[in-house]
Amino acid sequence: MSEQLFTHINKFSAISPEDFNRISSFFEFEKISKKQVLIEAGSFCNQNFFVLKGCLHLYFTNEKGVERTVQFAIDNWWMTDNLAYLGQTKTGFTIQAVEDTQLLSISFEKQEQLLKEFPQLERYFRIMYQIAYGSSLMKMKYLYDFSKEEIYFHFTEHFPEFAQRVPQYLIASFLGLTPEYVSEIRAKKRS
Amino acid sequence: MSEQLFTHINKFSAISPEDFNRISSFFEFEKISKKQVLIEAGSFCNQNFFVLKGCLHLYFTNEKGVERTVQFAIDNWWMTDNLAYLGQTKTGFTIQAVEDTQLLSISFEKQEQLLKEFPQLERYFRIMYQIAYGSSLMKMKYLYDFSKEEIYFHFTEHFPEFAQRVPQYLIASFLGLTPEYVSEIRAKKRS
Repeated sequence: MSEQLFTHINKFSAISPEDFNRISSFFEFEKISKKQVLIEAGSFCNQNFFVLKGCLHLYFTNEKGVERTVQFAIDNWWMTDNLAYLGQTKTGFTIQAVEDTQLLSISFEKQEQLLKEFPQLERYFRIMYQIAYGSSLMKMKYLYDFSKEEIYFHFTEHFPEFAQRVPQYLIASFLGLTPEYVSEIRAKKRS
Repeated sequence: MSEQLFTHINKFSAISPEDFNRISSFFEFEKISKKQVLIEAGSFCNQNFFVLKGCLHLYFTNEKGVERTVQFAIDNWWMTDNLAYLGQTKTGFTIQAVEDTQLLSISFEKQEQLLKEFPQLERYFRIMYQIAYGSSLMKMKYLYDFSKEEIYFHFTEHFPEFAQRVPQYLIASFLGLTPEYVSEIRAKKRS
């Protein structure tokens, strides 16, 4: 299971199999059921998750009680509320499984210890967050630049894996659209 | 000048003054005039900037010719198009000075060399991007959750330094609002 993390790390930073044996001991393997909540809004955010197989989403609930997804994580992605995790504070987001998911989890304290023992992992995480940050600015560009219809079709064309796996109402939420609107433009395209 | 970067790095990762002497030799000091363009949309993104004093913004121009700002950088912030920088590809964004700015710049090749020579800087950059990524998800939350009026007043209350330094039309652009709308709600608040 953790071989997958080993392969992923080695794409960005060289780690020996011997070191990885020790590295993997910092992580817990977890099997999560669809809809299971990993971290709830209002609680301390003390965990970081690496998805092996499955899908998580990070969402908040607005004043009207509507859930809005701001991020997904599928196979080989990391997920936590990074600001709350770094600052060891309460989070305003909930992290929940979108489908049955297998993941590796690590606590903040253990991750700090891990990075102290294997500083070469800093490079791996630096590149992960640099990509995530760069991607979030691209998403901002699409949100500002595209019509609602363009946003939806751009997303489903460029990220077909998401479009197939993630329920339509969550994709709508992630793109700032209503599920009704998405049904409408999909019907229009089919006709 | 580069003492400011030394202090900033040392908040997150321990660097000796001797090491920093060598580290600072990787950077170029630049004085940029207001409105000067550092990287232009369509060109290769080969530079990363650390703002010492001043303000940069990263924007794109949409089909209608309207400039939309997606990120600002003031004193002690880093700025580049991280996806284009990491992949060494052309960028769709322009980076321009909002006011007269003093900065340190580094090329991608030099930064890679720097990180090889001083791997302890990986920790510093990892935390920088983790904060930036976490913050961008918070911005997404505000964009989805708040009314246009709330977005504007939340931003000006929480980031007064920006509100004072950055022209209103750029703040409007950054928040996905029109300058006319911002004038309107400011007048309403004053009355």
